[in-house]
Amino acid sequence: MLVSRAVLSLTSFPNRKLFSSPSSLARARRLRNPRMASVSTIRASAQKLQSPDELIDSVETFIFDCDGVIWKGDSLIDGVPQTLDMLRSKGKRLVFVTNNSTKSRKQYGKKFETLGLNVNEEEIFASSFAAAAYLKSIDFPKDKKVYVIGEDGILKELELAGFQYLGGPEDGEKKIELKPGFYMDHDESVGAVVVGFDRYFNYYKVQYGTLCIRENPGCLFIATNRDAVTHLTDAQEWAGGGSMVGAICGSTKQEPLVVGKPSTFMMDYLSNKFGILKSQICMVGDRLDTDILFGQNGGCKTLLVLSGVTNLQMLQSPNNSIQPDFYTNKISDLLTLKAATV
Amino acid sequence: MLVSRAVLSLTSFPNRKLFSSPSSLARARRLRNPRMASVSTIRASAQKLQSPDELIDSVETFIFDCDGVIWKGDSLIDGVPQTLDMLRSKGKRLVFVTNNSTKSRKQYGKKFETLGLNVNEEEIFASSFAAAAYLKSIDFPKDKKVYVIGEDGILKELELAGFQYLGGPEDGEKKIELKPGFYMDHDESVGAVVVGFDRYFNYYKVQYGTLCIRENPGCLFIATNRDAVTHLTDAQEWAGGGSMVGAICGSTKQEPLVVGKPSTFMMDYLSNKFGILKSQICMVGDRLDTDILFGQNGGCKTLLVLSGVTNLQMLQSPNNSIQPDFYTNKISDLLTLKAATV
Repeated sequence: MLVSRAVLSLTSFPNRKLFSSPSSLARARRLRNPRMASVSTIRASAQKLQSPDELIDSVETFIFDCDGVIWKGDSLIDGVPQTLDMLRSKGKRLVFVTNNSTKSRKQYGKKFETLGLNVNEEEIFASSFAAAAYLKSIDFPKDKKVYVIGEDGILKELELAGFQYLGGPEDGEKKIELKPGFYMDHDESVGAVVVGFDRYFNYYKVQYGTLCIRENPGCLFIATNRDAVTHLTDAQEWAGGGSMVGAICGSTKQEPLVVGKPSTFMMDYLSNKFGILKSQICMVGDRLDTDILFGQNGGCKTLLVLSGVTNLQMLQSPNNSIQPDFYTNKISDLLTLKAATV
Repeated sequence: MLVSRAVLSLTSFPNRKLFSSPSSLARARRLRNPRMASVSTIRASAQKLQSPDELIDSVETFIFDCDGVIWKGDSLIDGVPQTLDMLRSKGKRLVFVTNNSTKSRKQYGKKFETLGLNVNEEEIFASSFAAAAYLKSIDFPKDKKVYVIGEDGILKELELAGFQYLGGPEDGEKKIELKPGFYMDHDESVGAVVVGFDRYFNYYKVQYGTLCIRENPGCLFIATNRDAVTHLTDAQEWAGGGSMVGAICGSTKQEPLVVGKPSTFMMDYLSNKFGILKSQICMVGDRLDTDILFGQNGGCKTLLVLSGVTNLQMLQSPNNSIQPDFYTNKISDLLTLKAATV
């Protein structure tokens, strides 16, 4: 039997009417930062997934995190193609969401293709795309510019959405010469600073972004995500986008608008774009504090897979207050278990 | 008449017994981070300094912040030499404290000399020195190393204190080559990461420091300061040490031990070293959230000068809850006003 969640999470991205009402930069600035979740501690403990059929039948859309769910580094996780095929054959909508902002949707599409997965670009939602989609949703003026602390994916998505930008990889080699009286100019038409993971992060970018946020009236501070770690290579954990965002928080004393998980912006966007009820969505991920919280913040069903960063001990630790509805080893359990119950 | 503060601040660096009791790395890790002050909002409003004689007579030691109080960039503020001479002639102890960690005490000594001020190295307390003094105070093991995200001043002070270190400016040009399977090694004997302002900040340093803090058991995370802005040149405000510290907070999800202002570590150190009662100290500074808070956290008298970043409007704004005992335009008012009352 499916057990419904004892308590619905209360935090949601505060712009659920974003796509149907007039919006402005001024309004966007008032949006609260939804990164802190208010999940109640009385939520029931996660159940081991026993009846995948019931879960599959109860939802219309599956949202999958990618790293640790679909692949690990450059290797596909066992049984993924068959599981996706089975879900498609049952008429389910599949969506792939990632906080990694270094690639655009198109670049992600190629990664899926290389791994032999038949996934359409339109089904992929990376936080690079979310940053551009967010700016579109607030009618960010086309005569304003975006300063980017981040990699190529963000630039590509901004370009596709028709926004002017500066910064990104080309500022990676820039240095500040601190001669007496040196003054650093900045572009006064920058109306938003987008910060994501950036392996070419440097002091020039910190100072440029800080000047824009501090001195350009109404300039937005948008973060693709605040993840502490990322998986640049599968050999170890790497400092994530949270470090670039933390640097700008430290110099501006401002908090960013987060468009990636666990903020519900992408969930709101998907729900609006495809006309899906959030209760008809199951969020599948390997991280409690991003994926599962993202699903819960959005009011969706949640399934934790143990094929990524979270193990059973971490899930069941008394220090963990984030409990998904269900957990299982890997997404292909949906197949195996299904076969077992037939 | 001198008006005593209505409410004493409650927050103090929690290791006031640091110098007289046995200490250890494990104990140091338990120290709370004192950067958030709990100054009561019912503190009386600051008074304009009218009777400098009473203030001078009531204290034994003056602690001066440097930038905005003694100098601005490379220019001495009017009347400083005469004021310092007058205070010395009245037998007052003078101490100069700065959150800037890019220089060592010796290097600061040269700056005072260049400006024509007769200040002894022993009277200067920079946060670079504070980082080394803190490690000494906890008997940081000499067979452990310190990884430095910061500039030359920190390295020089660590060397003088006899500690082994790595990192600092020499890691400024290092890059991470992200080939598949790439693994970044780190030194397992690093027992502390010290983070200060660093104009050669890069992703290599973020990842190295993060690995040490996350993977070396008991590794300390020490910040020289969390200042949002610093004055590298007098032409504009520059992103300060708070950005480097924020980056490491973002990737480790840990809070640092802060040794610079407004933490009271330096105040405790000074009080212990010179045997001064804190009520016999007057802290003189131009910043409310570092200098004045530092004085209040330490239980000292406080004098705000308007020759730096704070103006009268900011002091008297209803949004400002930090009220010094007194305020005046510049430290040479101690002279002028004194003359006027004779």
